[in-house]
Amino acid sequence: MATLGFIEYDDANAEVRAIYDDIMAVRGVDWINNFWKSLAHDPATLARTWRSVKEIMAPGALDAVTKEMIYLAVSATNQCGYCIASHTAAARKAGMTDAMFAEVMAVTGMANETNRLASGYQVEIDERFKAR
Amino acid sequence: MATLGFIEYDDANAEVRAIYDDIMAVRGVDWINNFWKSLAHDPATLARTWRSVKEIMAPGALDAVTKEMIYLAVSATNQCGYCIASHTAAARKAGMTDAMFAEVMAVTGMANETNRLASGYQVEIDERFKAR
Amino acid sequence: MATLGFIEYDDANAEVRAIYDDIMAVRGVDWINNFWKSLAHDPATLARTWRSVKEIMAPGALDAVTKEMIYLAVSATNQCGYCIASHTAAARKAGMTDAMFAEVMAVTGMANETNRLASGYQVEIDERFKAR
Amino acid sequence: MATLGFIEYDDANAEVRAIYDDIMAVRGVDWINNFWKSLAHDPATLARTWRSVKEIMAPGALDAVTKEMIYLAVSATNQCGYCIASHTAAARKAGMTDAMFAEVMAVTGMANETNRLASGYQVEIDERFKAR
Amino acid sequence: MATLGFIEYDDANAEVRAIYDDIMAVRGVDWINNFWKSLAHDPATLARTWRSVKEIMAPGALDAVTKEMIYLAVSATNQCGYCIASHTAAARKAGMTDAMFAEVMAVTGMANETNRLASGYQVEIDERFKAR
Amino acid sequence: MATLGFIEYDDANAEVRAIYDDIMAVRGVDWINNFWKSLAHDPATLARTWRSVKEIMAPGALDAVTKEMIYLAVSATNQCGYCIASHTAAARKAGMTDAMFAEVMAVTGMANETNRLASGYQVEIDERFKAR
Repeated sequence: MATLGFIEYDDANAEVRAIYDDIMAVRGVDWINNFWKSLAHDPATLARTWRSVKEIMAPGALDAVTKEMIYLAVSATNQCGYCIASHTAAARKAGMTDAMFAEVMAVTGMANETNRLASGYQVEIDERFKAR
Repeated sequence: MATLGFIEYDDANAEVRAIYDDIMAVRGVDWINNFWKSLAHDPATLARTWRSVKEIMAPGALDAVTKEMIYLAVSATNQCGYCIASHTAAARKAGMTDAMFAEVMAVTGMANETNRLASGYQVEIDERFKAR
Repeated sequence: MATLGFIEYDDANAEVRAIYDDIMAVRGVDWINNFWKSLAHDPATLARTWRSVKEIMAPGALDAVTKEMIYLAVSATNQCGYCIASHTAAARKAGMTDAMFAEVMAVTGMANETNRLASGYQVEIDERFKAR
Repeated sequence: MATLGFIEYDDANAEVRAIYDDIMAVRGVDWINNFWKSLAHDPATLARTWRSVKEIMAPGALDAVTKEMIYLAVSATNQCGYCIASHTAAARKAGMTDAMFAEVMAVTGMANETNRLASGYQVEIDERFKAR
Repeated sequence: MATLGFIEYDDANAEVRAIYDDIMAVRGVDWINNFWKSLAHDPATLARTWRSVKEIMAPGALDAVTKEMIYLAVSATNQCGYCIASHTAAARKAGMTDAMFAEVMAVTGMANETNRLASGYQVEIDERFKAR
Repeated sequence: MATLGFIEYDDANAEVRAIYDDIMAVRGVDWINNFWKSLAHDPATLARTWRSVKEIMAPGALDAVTKEMIYLAVSATNQCGYCIASHTAAARKAGMTDAMFAEVMAVTGMANETNRLASGYQVEIDERFKAR
């Protein structure tokens, strides 16, 4: 069980409810997932984290599905079970197909491999990669 | 200095030269970066790694720049200095603009933050995220 | 199930029992948690690890709750489920309130985010930070 | 060299200058470190990151030096060279003595060790640690 | 449940079955573990990963049990639950005794500890370690 | 420069000198590397860390070179530059050849790759791997 339990909508104060309402509105869903219901124990962190996520994940130079796939790649690298599950769902909702998922995983796996080959062989950065 | 030094093209045997030639041809460049010149001390690893990278990074369900940005996000997460430098260069060559770079970094940073909030709060995976 | 199962007090030899007794005495508890009951399969590691933990976690320049909060921050960063659960409990016992927990998590999350922004942007260390 | 170079105060636009001014005012310093001068290439990330750091690092249930020591412990765990250097400086400014630094490092090292012993031995979470 | 479910032998196409057959033949077992049955959703990744694993894990300058113990040490460092379980089993099958397991864990734990002491104390690499 | 500078033998007190002497005697060398000269600022950590390293790295069920290769694999996984350099040197001194180094790196890279494929595909642990 989560450390502090979950704060459900009906038990939330006005400040938390307003954030829950915004999460549901922005995402076009009618429920709140456990991550936010855990953070709600600390309204300041809930508010700040949602504000940042909303700002960062909005389509910009990158579209929504690309951002969600990057989020998933990072979460798989960090072995965060909750984040892998939630961002796989989010990426699929944003348009990630099975073929795209497979390629995200293939790139993520390969990057983790060559990251260690580069460090283990103590490879120095090429001058050309330092140039701007 | 790299553990084993670099094997330059002129000093390479036929097997290694053939791989160097293929790297340059596929990438449309006329030089080999230090990563491959280090791996060349172990031709089996050089051959296997290049074959995998070539297969994985070829455009498929995801295009080249998306793959390079995922590679960069993973490398930044892992604090691999060499890989950050080389894949920032590769992603730019594939079309990543300054604005896209900034968004890759913003998503990577945020994912690393919420990965720890999710684990630290011991958030359980929602049933809806488990359903297929 | 743990790889090697747990060694309960009644099944432990004299060497392991003596360590179990010391753990309970130092911590003021009447039970042994699964971590130690797993390590007991290797008495040398059990003895060395307990000796180190006892020495390091004793109040010194930092008090007990500060040390436990640092332990928790590291465990959340590493995504170690067992350690997050056990050190959250230990930190609470040492005096960590809900408000303190929330701030530990907020700092841990932020540090993980800026760690990646700093590496991804390839930020060089300021001269002033190098000075002693 | 940082990927995008540094944006110095004199070269910054009004939006960035305002943030630089706030950083210097809140911290009581007369210079801006490289981290912020790198992020300034993306004013949205600069603004959001500073706003979050300012909010999170302000004294609350935990005092400033405790927060900086947690930041340092996370940065050392993640092997972020820039962050280790900058937050060691920040923690010292906030009051961390040599003895406190040594204890932060000892706890950080030990936590990283037992995190792996717990995972490697596949230790299950004790029921008592699950209870609220 | 695995993201995409498992592809059992009887449901697999000819390409996947051929790989399953090779896995069972090389390992001398009559079943396929969940890892491969998940990857089978992407036959290209299944084929490439198995080919690499088969090549890398074959006895060479290092014997099979040494390679499996290194695999286990990395998996424990990364907190990958699945990999710890599967490679503990594989290492035991290759000859790892309880005493050897205990030493793998002790070294893994210690390395994780001193890795952070070295980074936290910002220790510079000795000239002698740079020499070839 | 290391945070606290290095404590050279001639400047060390009797307690630190005794540990330096033991390090040199056990390793059969006539110099002290920077790691220990940094830890010497905290004699308690120096003493405890050396005692643990000496105990863990002594040949037992595993020989010295196997232990050093595991140490190297973990250090490469964690991207600890100092530790990679020092333990590559230590492993070579203990008998690691170029061919063995190449295989350590190949296994380390592969494990880091499949660790992320397993987590990203959310693969559940096989019942057979749970059995003792």
